[in-house]
Amino acid sequence: MPLRMSTLFLRTLRDDPADAEVASHRLLVRAGYIRRAGPGAFTWLPLGMRVKNRVEQIVRGEMDAIGGQEVQFPALLPKEPYEVSGRWEDYGDGIFRVKDRKGADFLLAPTHEEMFTLLVKDHYSSYKDLPAYLYQIQTKYRDEARPRAGLLRVREFIMKDSYSFTVDDAGLERAYQDHRAAYLRIFARLGLEVVPVQATAGAMGGSASEEFLHPSPIGEDTFVESDGGYRANVEAVTTVAPAPLDEAALAGAPAAEVKDTPDSTTIAALVEVSNQLAPRAQGEWTAADTLKCVVVTAVLDGDQRRPFVVAVPGDRDVDLKRLESGVGELLGATGEPTLEAATEVDLGKVPSFVKGYIGPARVAADGASTQFLGGEAESGVPFFVDPRIAPGTPWITGANAPQQHVFGLVAGRDFTWDGVVEATAVRDGDPAPDGSGPLRTRRGIEMGHIFQLGRRYAEALDLKVLDENGKQVVVTMGSYGIGVTRAIAALAESNHDEKGLVWPRAVAPADVHVVATGKGEEIFAAAEELVAGLEERGLTVLYDDRKKVSAGVKFSDVELIGIPTSVVVGRGLAHGVVEVKDRATGEAREVEVATAADVIATLVAG
Amino acid sequence: MPLRMSTLFLRTLRDDPADAEVASHRLLVRAGYIRRAGPGAFTWLPLGMRVKNRVEQIVRGEMDAIGGQEVQFPALLPKEPYEVSGRWEDYGDGIFRVKDRKGADFLLAPTHEEMFTLLVKDHYSSYKDLPAYLYQIQTKYRDEARPRAGLLRVREFIMKDSYSFTVDDAGLERAYQDHRAAYLRIFARLGLEVVPVQATAGAMGGSASEEFLHPSPIGEDTFVESDGGYRANVEAVTTVAPAPLDEAALAGAPAAEVKDTPDSTTIAALVEVSNQLAPRAQGEWTAADTLKCVVVTAVLDGDQRRPFVVAVPGDRDVDLKRLESGVGELLGATGEPTLEAATEVDLGKVPSFVKGYIGPARVAADGASTQFLGGEAESGVPFFVDPRIAPGTPWITGANAPQQHVFGLVAGRDFTWDGVVEATAVRDGDPAPDGSGPLRTRRGIEMGHIFQLGRRYAEALDLKVLDENGKQVVVTMGSYGIGVTRAIAALAESNHDEKGLVWPRAVAPADVHVVATGKGEEIFAAAEELVAGLEERGLTVLYDDRKKVSAGVKFSDVELIGIPTSVVVGRGLAHGVVEVKDRATGEAREVEVATAADVIATLVAG
Repeated sequence: MPLRMSTLFLRTLRDDPADAEVASHRLLVRAGYIRRAGPGAFTWLPLGMRVKNRVEQIVRGEMDAIGGQEVQFPALLPKEPYEVSGRWEDYGDGIFRVKDRKGADFLLAPTHEEMFTLLVKDHYSSYKDLPAYLYQIQTKYRDEARPRAGLLRVREFIMKDSYSFTVDDAGLERAYQDHRAAYLRIFARLGLEVVPVQATAGAMGGSASEEFLHPSPIGEDTFVESDGGYRANVEAVTTVAPAPLDEAALAGAPAAEVKDTPDSTTIAALVEVSNQLAPRAQGEWTAADTLKCVVVTAVLDGDQRRPFVVAVPGDRDVDLKRLESGVGELLGATGEPTLEAATEVDLGKVPSFVKGYIGPARVAADGASTQFLGGEAESGVPFFVDPRIAPGTPWITGANAPQQHVFGLVAGRDFTWDGVVEATAVRDGDPAPDGSGPLRTRRGIEMGHIFQLGRRYAEALDLKVLDENGKQVVVTMGSYGIGVTRAIAALAESNHDEKGLVWPRAVAPADVHVVATGKGEEIFAAAEELVAGLEERGLTVLYDDRKKVSAGVKFSDVELIGIPTSVVVGRGLAHGVVEVKDRATGEAREVEVATAADVIATLVAG
Repeated sequence: MPLRMSTLFLRTLRDDPADAEVASHRLLVRAGYIRRAGPGAFTWLPLGMRVKNRVEQIVRGEMDAIGGQEVQFPALLPKEPYEVSGRWEDYGDGIFRVKDRKGADFLLAPTHEEMFTLLVKDHYSSYKDLPAYLYQIQTKYRDEARPRAGLLRVREFIMKDSYSFTVDDAGLERAYQDHRAAYLRIFARLGLEVVPVQATAGAMGGSASEEFLHPSPIGEDTFVESDGGYRANVEAVTTVAPAPLDEAALAGAPAAEVKDTPDSTTIAALVEVSNQLAPRAQGEWTAADTLKCVVVTAVLDGDQRRPFVVAVPGDRDVDLKRLESGVGELLGATGEPTLEAATEVDLGKVPSFVKGYIGPARVAADGASTQFLGGEAESGVPFFVDPRIAPGTPWITGANAPQQHVFGLVAGRDFTWDGVVEATAVRDGDPAPDGSGPLRTRRGIEMGHIFQLGRRYAEALDLKVLDENGKQVVVTMGSYGIGVTRAIAALAESNHDEKGLVWPRAVAPADVHVVATGKGEEIFAAAEELVAGLEERGLTVLYDDRKKVSAGVKFSDVELIGIPTSVVVGRGLAHGVVEVKDRATGEAREVEVATAADVIATLVAG
């Protein structure tokens, strides 16, 4: 049966929804695929259901092809397994927590590593049972602080998550590569460009991990690539740090010296003053010679605010997201803390700070320095440095006194730190860490993420099997996710024009959009016949059979809804022709009505 | 591709799970269809996924056939619409409530009347848009106090819920009948016996409603039927009350009289004492002549305990479930209260109660009575009566004094009540309210429920359309649910024997179970060939290709898993035959291997 527009639960909208910032949100709502149901929550309408089902079927097909077996877990799960793995705490505010009528704790699961681990433990006991690849296509939940961008950042979403269980690392590597290949096939079938990039593991834990990013100017992730083939999420990029200077070179460096630097609370002012006060033989001072000490506040569990200082070269910006993925461990926090620029209130709590003149040390007239920053030093504020602050490098930086900076403060000689952390934003032209050339940055939407989890969950939940020698070994795991909901949003982002959506054939809600225009009964009769002919040939049809709607409105809907091929049965019928139009190219041609079904079937197949 | 037992994620269990009380729970777990994931929560394993998908497809097909359009709502929804309809309060402890990180209130929806109403309001504005039938197959949540019986009473379950929107009552009646017919077709296709019975609306509201009950000794619902075709859930049965006596007859009744009735705190003792003390000309007193005043405690919102008294004939038991569906309104409570027998503590709070001698009134020596029970009377305890306590009926009942009862206390003359409520258990032989003969009681499992909601939700959420005369009218709604999860449990309950499950063909996880037994390579080669032949003929196959598993274990698994037809490729192959066996009848026959695929395909086609 065709979808008939006369009865289809659909009202296309002329105007953009007020809260829609991105094209996919705007168009999926206007064209009647989804409708807002709450903050970060959408209802799938009949057209949207079609697209969702097709995407799910493609995902399912490729998972089955690598030997994946489909199961389905509840979304509402008891706390205990997540407590054992540590994720109950790690996720902080990021998950929905629920109490039942007896006060027992549950969560709406964001992913299911723990439950799959327990399920396999419940079933298997020997290496002969492995490998096992299990997956589900399931509704997941995250308590997003700021749901936005339509389906791109929501609180309830559909994900395919799979988990591999293997007896050793070699098995994990195979499982990982099987999934990686399946993912590339899935995205190819969906018609969705993705770039696999190195990634960080976040709350998931584990070692190697890659993200599949769909390049898009509205992407929330930034990734880099080099001509030599290095590709990584900026969060995973490691800085190529200068080699530490050796003892001899260090010994020859001049002593640190405090100078008056009036009104130089910005890097630009400091550079200008430096070049006036202490011009350098080997060329002018630049921002790269200054050490910027930035006060950042980590918001930890229970809203505790903990300031720390991170030092970066003055020509670099701090990237809070990159900093977040590394600094948690240094702060002794569970999970990733949320970072914010320190507020006046945060700064006010450290009375020894001189705003605009903060530096790692105090330097006496004889050049002797005493540590100022650091958990154990005068300020008591934890102090971390970017890898570029390598031992032996000299810096111009704040002297911790009003209107004064210190020159030639040497890292490792005149000051130390509590830890080294990736803190600066990656820039176009920065060298790739593997020496494969300069990096370019791009933005992307995360479509999938694959993790070599290793033994974290199996160890925590005691999943062991007997190996070939009859010895108990901890099982090695991987986990792999694809966002079904997000894939649809990304497809809409990359496949639209100013008039509406332009679906790739593989995911369109129908193969053909048949439009009957005009008033003659013979037009509707011919259209019905064409629809029947198309369905006989195995095509799915959206049929605009509305009688009191103008041709103009119908044509607008064709463009808004975005089915790849449309056929207009109208005026041309008098001459025995219908108009077949391609949504993507806009090309239209007349086709004899008698052969139209065959012509279109060939088009769709090809 | 066949499901291969060598790699299938399946471990059948020899022993019943410790917590399994009913056959469906026991066998679905043992045969590897589901596994417990938490209290009232189950994981669907690969075999279970197959059955679930088939059930869902049957439901989907019949909903589409009546013009239903599939959509999908989030499960996690904001409080507001449910607050407007009153259900946020009505559901009490029965739903899961969730707060997001900002403290906003959400719920895990048990059903979606409010959201569908708002969705239609958002789309439609004219009678021309109606009727609309919308449905979803979706995961739902209830905070069950006592999850039990496997899939029969769980906290997270899959339901098909649909909603009809029509312009008037005639439209609603059509929509209701469309759904009723679709439901009967669904159950017929599933091979599941159901009895449609009249039901009460509960928290859903609305007028006419029917439940589809699957007769089963483990059912939690009791229903009645008469030879004349009356069928109702016991909660919906109305009592055929005696006609009130007229004034003249009342006037002739003797005055009430208090008598000493030592040690008669039970009905049996009271009857015996009555026949000794005051023998009656027209035959012995029986329990039916006594009025039993039962103290019941309603547990209301916030654990408030509110005792009331309900009076029933002494030969009848109080049915708390029946009482629950009617007494809430009389108590001025929102929703259905939970009822419990009053505890000693509850009784202690009403000092004027004389335990074992409670009655509606105090009677003086001259026969004058003063009301004792009732919100406005001496005790201050609300007082309700069963419809059998009709005006004019005389009773033997407690005199509210130790060791005393009153005889000839006439309803309406000597005592009154705060309300009439269905309070007694329905018994085999009670008359059907429509005069269609005596009732028989049976137990059943609720498989579906259809409601003529009327305008409750549309009015609360202001869903109106313009009618033919251009006037705004409130839309008329129906809601209709089928439990997918429960249907699977009920199918397992009714289709098993002591050895395992016996699936009807329509929902079996595969059409054929092929078993290869023996050691010869030629056996496995022949089995592979047969499997390929069956798949070519469009059949789905579970193939036991395990090499180190005994024939006995394989045969046990065939019986436990319960696929309708099995084929053993083994010893017989030497003579060119395989054994085809019917799971339900146990009949086995030899078939030539060359023609086996055709023979089996014919068998399966039916």
